[in-house]
Amino acid sequence: MSEPTLLQRRYRVLGDQSPLFYDEPLEFVRGEGVWLHDREGRRYLDAYNNVPCVGHCHPRVVAAMARQAATLNIHTRYLSEIVVEYAERLTATFAAPLDGLMYTCTGSESNELALRMARHLSGHAGIIVSDYNYHGNTTTLAAVTTALPSSEPFSGHARAVTIPNLYHAEGPAEAVADRHVAQVAQAIDSLQRAGVGVAAMLIDTFFANEGIPTLPAGYLERVARLVREAGGLLVVDEVQSGFGRTGGHLWGHQAHGLVPDIVTLGKPMGNGFPLAGVVTRRDRIEDFGRANLYFNTFGGSPVAAAVGLAVLDVIRDEGLQDSVQRVGAGLAAGLQRLAERHAIIGDVRGRGLFYAVELVRDRATREPAGAEARQVANRMRDRGILISRIGAADNILKIRPPLVFDDSHAAHFIDTLDGVLAGL
Amino acid sequence: MSEPTLLQRRYRVLGDQSPLFYDEPLEFVRGEGVWLHDREGRRYLDAYNNVPCVGHCHPRVVAAMARQAATLNIHTRYLSEIVVEYAERLTATFAAPLDGLMYTCTGSESNELALRMARHLSGHAGIIVSDYNYHGNTTTLAAVTTALPSSEPFSGHARAVTIPNLYHAEGPAEAVADRHVAQVAQAIDSLQRAGVGVAAMLIDTFFANEGIPTLPAGYLERVARLVREAGGLLVVDEVQSGFGRTGGHLWGHQAHGLVPDIVTLGKPMGNGFPLAGVVTRRDRIEDFGRANLYFNTFGGSPVAAAVGLAVLDVIRDEGLQDSVQRVGAGLAAGLQRLAERHAIIGDVRGRGLFYAVELVRDRATREPAGAEARQVANRMRDRGILISRIGAADNILKIRPPLVFDDSHAAHFIDTLDGVLAGL
Repeated sequence: MSEPTLLQRRYRVLGDQSPLFYDEPLEFVRGEGVWLHDREGRRYLDAYNNVPCVGHCHPRVVAAMARQAATLNIHTRYLSEIVVEYAERLTATFAAPLDGLMYTCTGSESNELALRMARHLSGHAGIIVSDYNYHGNTTTLAAVTTALPSSEPFSGHARAVTIPNLYHAEGPAEAVADRHVAQVAQAIDSLQRAGVGVAAMLIDTFFANEGIPTLPAGYLERVARLVREAGGLLVVDEVQSGFGRTGGHLWGHQAHGLVPDIVTLGKPMGNGFPLAGVVTRRDRIEDFGRANLYFNTFGGSPVAAAVGLAVLDVIRDEGLQDSVQRVGAGLAAGLQRLAERHAIIGDVRGRGLFYAVELVRDRATREPAGAEARQVANRMRDRGILISRIGAADNILKIRPPLVFDDSHAAHFIDTLDGVLAGL
Repeated sequence: MSEPTLLQRRYRVLGDQSPLFYDEPLEFVRGEGVWLHDREGRRYLDAYNNVPCVGHCHPRVVAAMARQAATLNIHTRYLSEIVVEYAERLTATFAAPLDGLMYTCTGSESNELALRMARHLSGHAGIIVSDYNYHGNTTTLAAVTTALPSSEPFSGHARAVTIPNLYHAEGPAEAVADRHVAQVAQAIDSLQRAGVGVAAMLIDTFFANEGIPTLPAGYLERVARLVREAGGLLVVDEVQSGFGRTGGHLWGHQAHGLVPDIVTLGKPMGNGFPLAGVVTRRDRIEDFGRANLYFNTFGGSPVAAAVGLAVLDVIRDEGLQDSVQRVGAGLAAGLQRLAERHAIIGDVRGRGLFYAVELVRDRATREPAGAEARQVANRMRDRGILISRIGAADNILKIRPPLVFDDSHAAHFIDTLDGVLAGL
């Protein structure tokens, strides 16, 4: 009898349903910058992972974590300078009146807390989400999730609306906006008639899971107004789009000139350390806190804060906001060139270092090329580049590298994708 | 104008409701073993914190974290040896048939996931909890919480039962057990009549929040049987009692000879690194996974696994299971001696390194001495020792030091508490 493989051992202890990427899963042993190395010494260009936003195993982040972990690691029921310092640094990056932070550990915890706050503050229970959303793995979030299977039935207190996408919608942009704003108005009306009212609209304004749709002008401003007029709060999930991902701005919602009522943060915040949070007005935090004793044991530890500060320092000192914009523009141009050469590319959408490349079998009908997208992701893997797929038909390539991706990486990426598409 | 104090700065950015210990909060700058140091160089004996279970800033844990964070830190959709290795090591400490692990980041996430699993597996919705419980900060857990205020009304799908405590109950132990088992039977009946059935009974078998009650023999076995006969699962929360805390056994439930259906883990698992998990049968994990795409971005990272392994290594190599039992026996004996000298001590309960010292104004009526307990906690702080309080009347001293607490720490603790009690 031979030794069990790592995959077999994993199945035995984590079960066979724990998600894995690729037809043939990859085992990694080392990461550095935009590279991940497997056991055989082969390196892969990471064009997928957003969590290690300043690069895998960034030495400044690792050093900050190690130094603080060797000094003090405790919860927030005692005072600690660095915990306050990070909260000050972070909240200063948001527009007024967003001046307060509640620390959590994960994006799921952040979205959970945001909905608890929205329900408390509004006095309503209803939640509006997109019809292809994922905001976390808790019961409440599973019951409003539309992009992944779950045992929980869709909540009777929630309504799902379709996010407009000019690539798919018929008619002029203004009419598209009108139709989709009307959907939100109907959702509000439905929640009010059901007696639960509107507590929140919970959205990622970049709509990553929805495939980074091209929005008609004015859509977001108009739905935000409707939600607020109904007494609800606009909760913006920056778990994917935050920390400079979309280029130019630190926060995805800033590209729309919006100021949300509550912002939720996660994934890239600690470059892999479980650090997350909810940003909103301090008076709202205090209002919630007077009725709810919220405590998060690991949330806001000095180690979490030290890591968070190091991430902000690296983004600033390595000029990542600028480089994301510059490298991203080159990557976008490269993807557009591929779209001219490969008819399977129906659309290229995105900004900064986050792109959706929608594959279609026919540009007129826009029939989703899901099997082909899967093939492309697997062949890119075989050629040493990591990407993934998104969208209801899994036909959209998801390109979302660490922010330290540079021009040479982008060029290598475009060349390789060109070859893979040519070989389909 | 003077500079704002750290406390003022904290209020400005975290709000004034974020919980703090003591009438005069403490600021710490360094931790080591059982000691925490403030900015003025004063050190405090930590007799409260269970998260740093192998001691504050344990060098082996810090080194493991730093080494792995510098090597690879990624999610579980790729394979990684150490992630499987830790899961194997951890599950091997549980009795059959508990052979599978789902990684999470916090105890709240673990209890959330456990309830999602229990509802999926049982096909029922009802949850039975104690009437002085806290299992986490999410919406679902807030709606079954009875020990802390929250905006969420107590769930119509939940029933709260009183956990028997021989110190407070009237009559012979057997009758006490009968009465409290009958409460659980009534809760089951009520959930069944409401049409939701029983998904789970969620309890900490050490009942830390409830004040570590002395249970009548047979109570837990009998209620576990009732819950299972109703098609529900016994979910045991080891967030406080796990990892050797109660001495002799690694898991609190093992002291009762029980095998739970689902075990939830948190706090001490990563000695302060956000590492948590759910242990149950692998086939149950797979059943849940076939209907639910559960993914936890930070859960089960190689860094989390490396930290978890280091904690298990230290518990083994420093003989902490034995020392917890030995030092704990001495501490318990010391507390009993204090009870003979100080009439305010109504009862001393606990095991291992976790004790409840219940303060009463009158031993006959057992009138809670809440104000006195607060005074004791604050005066212990003034004398350089950290403890806290539990119980519905906040009259129970909570003594729960890191597991590396030794005989000299215990002796110093008893001496100091003796003096504080004498000075009341």
